[in-house]
Amino acid sequence: MSELSLLESLRAINVTAPFNRWLDLEVTAASRGEAEIRMLWRPEAAQYSGFLHAGLIGALIDTACGFAAATLGQRVIASHFQVNCLAPGLGAAFIAKGAVVKAGRRQIFTRADLYAEDHAGALKLIASGETILLPVEDEAGAAAV
Amino acid sequence: MSELSLLESLRAINVTAPFNRWLDLEVTAASRGEAEIRMLWRPEAAQYSGFLHAGLIGALIDTACGFAAATLGQRVIASHFQVNCLAPGLGAAFIAKGAVVKAGRRQIFTRADLYAEDHAGALKLIASGETILLPVEDEAGAAAV
Amino acid sequence: MSELSLLESLRAINVTAPFNRWLDLEVTAASRGEAEIRMLWRPEAAQYSGFLHAGLIGALIDTACGFAAATLGQRVIASHFQVNCLAPGLGAAFIAKGAVVKAGRRQIFTRADLYAEDHAGALKLIASGETILLPVEDEAGAAAV
Amino acid sequence: MSELSLLESLRAINVTAPFNRWLDLEVTAASRGEAEIRMLWRPEAAQYSGFLHAGLIGALIDTACGFAAATLGQRVIASHFQVNCLAPGLGAAFIAKGAVVKAGRRQIFTRADLYAEDHAGALKLIASGETILLPVEDEAGAAAV
Repeated sequence: MSELSLLESLRAINVTAPFNRWLDLEVTAASRGEAEIRMLWRPEAAQYSGFLHAGLIGALIDTACGFAAATLGQRVIASHFQVNCLAPGLGAAFIAKGAVVKAGRRQIFTRADLYAEDHAGALKLIASGETILLPVEDEAGAAAV
Repeated sequence: MSELSLLESLRAINVTAPFNRWLDLEVTAASRGEAEIRMLWRPEAAQYSGFLHAGLIGALIDTACGFAAATLGQRVIASHFQVNCLAPGLGAAFIAKGAVVKAGRRQIFTRADLYAEDHAGALKLIASGETILLPVEDEAGAAAV
Repeated sequence: MSELSLLESLRAINVTAPFNRWLDLEVTAASRGEAEIRMLWRPEAAQYSGFLHAGLIGALIDTACGFAAATLGQRVIASHFQVNCLAPGLGAAFIAKGAVVKAGRRQIFTRADLYAEDHAGALKLIASGETILLPVEDEAGAAAV
Repeated sequence: MSELSLLESLRAINVTAPFNRWLDLEVTAASRGEAEIRMLWRPEAAQYSGFLHAGLIGALIDTACGFAAATLGQRVIASHFQVNCLAPGLGAAFIAKGAVVKAGRRQIFTRADLYAEDHAGALKLIASGETILLPVEDEAGAAAV
C-alpha cells in the first residue's frame, strides 16, 4: 500500500474507536511499520496537577503502537504495554510516534515516543513506551487471548 | 487516619483531577496502603472492537496505584507503569484495586488488579499492572523527575 | 499430577538447563500453578557493590515463573519479563516463589517474588517481577516467536 | 572525558563485579551516554533448549544500560528493568548496546539492544530492554532505594 492509502486506512480505523473520537485523535502520518498520531490539549485531559494524565500518556503510546502494527495489514489487540514518564506533560498538543520493532507470527513488539508540542511547534520528549500486541485471528479469537 | 478519613481524603483528591471527573471515577474503598476505584461502563470508553480501551485500562490501574500510595500521606507522580491485558474488557462497571508493594524513600512500588463487573455484580479479572511512583518534593520538584 | 511428582518433574527439567546447574538452583516446592526455587549465595553472584547482581535477580524470577508455568504441563519460552529491585540483594540464600496469574491459549502470565534468606532463616522481600511466556508448539515452534 | 578514558573507566568498573568476571564480559565501546559490551558464548549459559538463558539476556541488557549511565560519571543501582525476547539466543557471541534515554536528577532511564553474532561476525537482534536506574548517593544511600 502507498503511504497515502496507509494513512487513509488508519484514519478509517481511528474513527471506529469511540475513545479515539472522544480524544479527537488525529492520525498524522503512516508508513510501513510506523504511525504518528496527534491530540490537542484539552482541560479534561489533566491529572490533579494540571499535567497530561498518565492514563492518557498510556493511551497515546498504546494507540500509536497499535496503528504502527496495523500498517502491516494485521488487526491486533494489546496484550502488554509499559510507559516511562520522562517529563511532565505540558503542551498545546501531544504527538506519539510508534514503530514496529519485531513482527513475529505470534506477537508484534512495538515502541513509541510521546512528545509535547508547544505553541511554536517545538517538540519535547515527555514519555516512551512499548507494547506487545497479538494478531487477532478472527472475531472469536479476539476474546481468546 | 481512620479508613473513613482516608476515603474522604482520596475523594477530595479525585475531584481535583479533571480526567477522573470526565471518567466519573468513584473512590469506593481505602485503607492504609490500599485503594479501590470504580467506573461505570460508557460507550465513549471503547476501542474499535467495543471493549474497554487499553488506554483506560492503564488509566484505571495507574489511578488505583496512585491512590494506594496517597493513603500513606504522600503526594506522588507516576514514573513508570505497565499493564497486562488478561481478558477483553467487557462489563457494566470496572473496579481497580491498588496496593503498595514497597514504599521507599525515593520510589514507591505499587500493584493493581482490574476487574470487570457484570450486571449481577460478579467480578472477572481482566488486567493487572504495576506502577513506580515518585514522591513529589514540592511544586518545583514535580517537574524535576 | 501429585505435588510430589510435579516437584520431581521440575527437578528433571532443572538439571537439563546448564545455567541452572551452574547456579546450583534447587527446586524446593511445586504445586499446580506454583513453583519455588532456592539458590545459595556465592561470591561469583555479586555486582560491583557486593549485592546479588540484577541479572541474577532476573534469572531467579524468570526461572521461578517458567517453572510455575511448567506445572501446568506446558513447555514454554520467555517472551517478556520485568523486574522491580525493591531492596539490596544480601543474604545467605535467595528464594523465588512463582505463580501463574493467567494461563491463556496463546500466552501465560506469571508473577514471582524474590526473598533473601538470612543465616537464621528469616526472609526479606528484595524483588518482584512478571513474565509473559509462550507455549512451545514444537521444536520448530520454539524458534518462531 | 575522552572516549578512550570512558572505555578505561568502564573496564575498571567491570573487573570489580564478580559476576561480570565469571561471564567474562568485555567492554567494547563507550561514549558519553552509550556503552557496548560483549560476551562469548559458553555452554554454561544455556537454558534447557540450548539457547542463551533469559536470565543472561537480562544480565547483558542490564549491564549495558548500567554502563551507559556510568559514562555520565554517576554510580547507579538498578531499580527496574524489563526485557523483550525477540528471537532465540543462538550465537558465537552476544553484544549488548546500551544508551541513556533521559538522565534525570532522581532517575536515569536507559535502553539496550542485544545482538547475537555468528561466526562470520553478522549481527542479529535477539532482545531489547529498558532499565530505570537510581543514582547512588553514597555508600549508605545504596541501601536506601
